[in-house]
Amino acid sequence: MMEAKPKAVVLLSGGLDSATTLYVARREGYALHALSFRYGQRHVYELACAARVARAAGVVQHVVLDVDLRAIGGSALTANLAVPKNRSAADRTGAIPITYVPARNTIFLALALAWAETLGAADLFIGVNALDYSGYPDCRPEYIAAFERLAQLATKAGVEGRQRPQVRAPLIRMTKAEIIRTGLDLGVDYSLTSSCYDPAPDGRPCGACDACQLRAGGFAALGLRDPAGL
Amino acid sequence: MMEAKPKAVVLLSGGLDSATTLYVARREGYALHALSFRYGQRHVYELACAARVARAAGVVQHVVLDVDLRAIGGSALTANLAVPKNRSAADRTGAIPITYVPARNTIFLALALAWAETLGAADLFIGVNALDYSGYPDCRPEYIAAFERLAQLATKAGVEGRQRPQVRAPLIRMTKAEIIRTGLDLGVDYSLTSSCYDPAPDGRPCGACDACQLRAGGFAALGLRDPAGL
Repeated sequence: MMEAKPKAVVLLSGGLDSATTLYVARREGYALHALSFRYGQRHVYELACAARVARAAGVVQHVVLDVDLRAIGGSALTANLAVPKNRSAADRTGAIPITYVPARNTIFLALALAWAETLGAADLFIGVNALDYSGYPDCRPEYIAAFERLAQLATKAGVEGRQRPQVRAPLIRMTKAEIIRTGLDLGVDYSLTSSCYDPAPDGRPCGACDACQLRAGGFAALGLRDPAGL
Repeated sequence: MMEAKPKAVVLLSGGLDSATTLYVARREGYALHALSFRYGQRHVYELACAARVARAAGVVQHVVLDVDLRAIGGSALTANLAVPKNRSAADRTGAIPITYVPARNTIFLALALAWAETLGAADLFIGVNALDYSGYPDCRPEYIAAFERLAQLATKAGVEGRQRPQVRAPLIRMTKAEIIRTGLDLGVDYSLTSSCYDPAPDGRPCGACDACQLRAGGFAALGLRDPAGL
């Protein structure tokens, strides 16, 4: 009889990083439980991408949770504020931009933790990256370590020592090009993904927001065309 | 001209502990922003209590957020499981009971943190208690300390050193009787509150769940009648 696979909860936005993370978890042999959020994001198109990526990866289950952050919002991604365009790499090393959604990864990881505990999963996967990123505080290694420690104190499974929650961020120290290379080796179809903060209604990326620029830089560094690009 | 009051976000369930916490924050001079959740709890009656308590305390704002934990659930408070009744104090020092909602306080604090950051509030108040409680892991002092550390790493305000988030749990080391004494001194009207995990549709408490028993014990220790009691 086959051993049951261990379960993992994978945060899946529908973007390039989370799709790659899903395939990393798949390679490691986990039964995949993908979690996405409808949180009032203007780029809600990404949820259709998340569903396609989840299907392509053969997940056991894909849940989309509603958490309307607009009621407590304050970000260009959820409120009626302009998404910054055509920022330079230097701009991105400066102050935290207005696309930052307050405490977003804390909220998403908390909900992933709840689901993991219900499923009996110890491992949470998140596609954060602290290299080619927009300078968000909740994408840094020290943040991820602090959440893992919290998770081990917060849960029945952690306290009872059965399954100490682990937060896995396999992309955290990769460049965007390394992420894409990793994903291509694992069979990710990036034509299914969307990274843009401000896409057209049909999903066409704007090409000028931070997310589009970081993504374009990654494909360019590999001498590749982005299959979901302009 | 009057100095603007500092703002605090207070988690308000509508129960005895959170009502008392709200009044502690009021005494300390904060402008109060109360946050409640419709999370699929069977004791949704408590939200009507939260609204009444918020009004009585003169909060600036009371927000009820929808986060349907039933989609990822696994608790007698959200799923179709029986709430344990008539447990002894010894029962309550044993294993974590099935009324435990996975990662609930982590989810609630994460959302409170997001709102606090948007409001420009540094202080989060939560009415957890580690003495007369049901043994939930996310009510202990070490859990609260871990969340505070996470919050300071997670947020723009924390990272930029403007307003380092603080998690305040003023009841954490009080007995239930001390909590009630404190609240009465501050003018809390406990007839507006509801603690029961399994109330009748009209809000009448069951009198036998952990929450009812702990509450009854607190009033009894003070020789008082519970104004919201049976």
